[in-house]
Amino acid sequence: MAVQEAGSIGIVEIRYFTFAAPPNELQLECGRTLGPITIAYEMYGEMNADKSNCILVCHALSGDSHAAGRYHLDDPKPGWWDSMIGPGKAFDTDKYCVICSNVIGGCKGSAGPGSIDPATGEVYALNFPMVTISDMVQAQKALVDYLGIRQLLCVVGGSAGGMQVLQWAVSYPDMVRLIIPICSTARLSAQAIGFDAVGRQAIMGDPNWMDGNYYGKSIPSIGLGIARMVGHITYLSEKSMHTKFGRDLQDKPNFDYDFLTEFKVESYLSYRGDEFVKRFDANSYLYITKAMDYFDLAQPTGDLRRSLSVAKSAFLVISVSSDWLFPPYMSKEIVSALRRNNIDVSYAELQSDYGHDAFLLEVDVMTRLITSFLEYGQPAE
Amino acid sequence: MAVQEAGSIGIVEIRYFTFAAPPNELQLECGRTLGPITIAYEMYGEMNADKSNCILVCHALSGDSHAAGRYHLDDPKPGWWDSMIGPGKAFDTDKYCVICSNVIGGCKGSAGPGSIDPATGEVYALNFPMVTISDMVQAQKALVDYLGIRQLLCVVGGSAGGMQVLQWAVSYPDMVRLIIPICSTARLSAQAIGFDAVGRQAIMGDPNWMDGNYYGKSIPSIGLGIARMVGHITYLSEKSMHTKFGRDLQDKPNFDYDFLTEFKVESYLSYRGDEFVKRFDANSYLYITKAMDYFDLAQPTGDLRRSLSVAKSAFLVISVSSDWLFPPYMSKEIVSALRRNNIDVSYAELQSDYGHDAFLLEVDVMTRLITSFLEYGQPAE
Repeated sequence: MAVQEAGSIGIVEIRYFTFAAPPNELQLECGRTLGPITIAYEMYGEMNADKSNCILVCHALSGDSHAAGRYHLDDPKPGWWDSMIGPGKAFDTDKYCVICSNVIGGCKGSAGPGSIDPATGEVYALNFPMVTISDMVQAQKALVDYLGIRQLLCVVGGSAGGMQVLQWAVSYPDMVRLIIPICSTARLSAQAIGFDAVGRQAIMGDPNWMDGNYYGKSIPSIGLGIARMVGHITYLSEKSMHTKFGRDLQDKPNFDYDFLTEFKVESYLSYRGDEFVKRFDANSYLYITKAMDYFDLAQPTGDLRRSLSVAKSAFLVISVSSDWLFPPYMSKEIVSALRRNNIDVSYAELQSDYGHDAFLLEVDVMTRLITSFLEYGQPAE
Repeated sequence: MAVQEAGSIGIVEIRYFTFAAPPNELQLECGRTLGPITIAYEMYGEMNADKSNCILVCHALSGDSHAAGRYHLDDPKPGWWDSMIGPGKAFDTDKYCVICSNVIGGCKGSAGPGSIDPATGEVYALNFPMVTISDMVQAQKALVDYLGIRQLLCVVGGSAGGMQVLQWAVSYPDMVRLIIPICSTARLSAQAIGFDAVGRQAIMGDPNWMDGNYYGKSIPSIGLGIARMVGHITYLSEKSMHTKFGRDLQDKPNFDYDFLTEFKVESYLSYRGDEFVKRFDANSYLYITKAMDYFDLAQPTGDLRRSLSVAKSAFLVISVSSDWLFPPYMSKEIVSALRRNNIDVSYAELQSDYGHDAFLLEVDVMTRLITSFLEYGQPAE
């Protein structure tokens, strides 16, 4: 192990696990099968002897398996939840073994539309089957089995990661002690589906998209950039945008009266769009937003209480006051359904101006909440 | 006059007024000049002898001069504010003469990027100068002068129309008795500028846009459609979208697991995008959203109270509880600035789930508010 930063897990590595080789393909919710399937994952901290200290972290739309640490000493940025995972942090790697895997349908090492279809030797592109949140969780379950973990101490995640967390609670109730969905929901609102649809139309309307067959050619960067810009607005609150940008101009005192980016907020959103295009596959954006749109934990009966009745874990549900994409009322619906099932649930609505992105930013208060919840969920000594 | 529908102004006609012929071009805020300028306008009801019963209606981003009535008997749709303008309606054409003109920069008969530049005989395209809300109001003032109106009884409008209304109050304080900004603001939020920027980038990223020189060729329909879709989401509230669409599917009982529009909300937004592309010019969308972004009534001092101190009209400021694009706190800022100037102001926050679009939909309550405000503003008999 290389020299560690204080509180950092240090140098980490990405690993790969392949399963579901024919004839044992994974049966997907859409009716199709998928296999063999490779999953990219990372592990931080050591498993104890009976593997009872394992925590699965589920990432959001644009995340990946690289939740903490750095790949090498010169790596400019740590993993996406490094503030929460490491020695002495909320997910304390001195105590717990933290696992994070890239979702299927993604583009960071797990099977997705940009992977090679073993049946043809070509890139899947849109021949990749539609995957749902439940399918993503099935694949995570295969990884957990492979690692020899009988029961996860905790499954945790924010946003679309929180959807996976909730799915774990109902798909594999005996396999999870503690469940932490953050800024999440049992189903997207019509508004959120609308924003997802705008992003997809921007991608699919980009002439470079070519029905998804752009691999090795020019990518639909304009469409994907626009999808990210609109998404990014929904991750912030109006107030946090006001505080961060207001009506300030970018690098000039007065209006130029042209159609270039003039306001700081324009410049910032453009920049975020451009950065995203460099690191994310447009087709994966289509697949994962569709998985989010399809997710409805209340189905097939329409009764969320009934769906959650099978859960056996203890829950800590966290929402954020200024999150207008997955508003607190959605978390409260989950809490209410759990309580009506007499399931052990704690609820915290963080008072924060950061909007949906608060699950990545409100480190101190989340650390306090999660640290004590993880201890409470431990077997008595 | 043809046969009238009950409460309708009946058949109306579009008129044109041309002014600012060289060397008397209009001096624009951006430093450039524009002229000659044609303005499209409509008039409903009769002027009284001293022309003291005239009401100017200012339209929003996607509106036009056709606020009421129909152009011919088979016209499928009346003007955009027909519910509010006509005999016995809020803007009662038995009493008042209602005038509505298309903004400069627009695409419905007034000078804009799609007009012919008299200097070159070619379409302006992006050679059209940048126009601001203040410039739009200057042009309206020229029309009002031409019509021989010394003082308008009222200037009224919603959204970007409300910005023009506020500008009237400070640009020509002696020329307006009553001011009614609805769902409006003294300045856009960073969030709203961000949404406008997304729309513009979608248009300008469409290969058909060709730096604005698409006239007579394929238009940037995909980009403009996306701009409209994202705009449309911001005009509705989350609750109204939930009520209208929920998570219902379009014309099918189950998911098809494809990337076509599956949810009703997707289908609706797509449809609205397609309809908009048929009737609106993409470059005008760029110009008018820029005018909205630039608008800041508090400038040049940064003090809104000071800017409004010159106003002499009485104000009725109307906001909508669920409007998250121009939230009530923005209207309250205006009201507060007016009160600190001892200016006569009434404020109403409509309790409505319709979001920003409520100014087009909450006809009954707005009719009650506006009818009495117009009567109150009349000279004592």
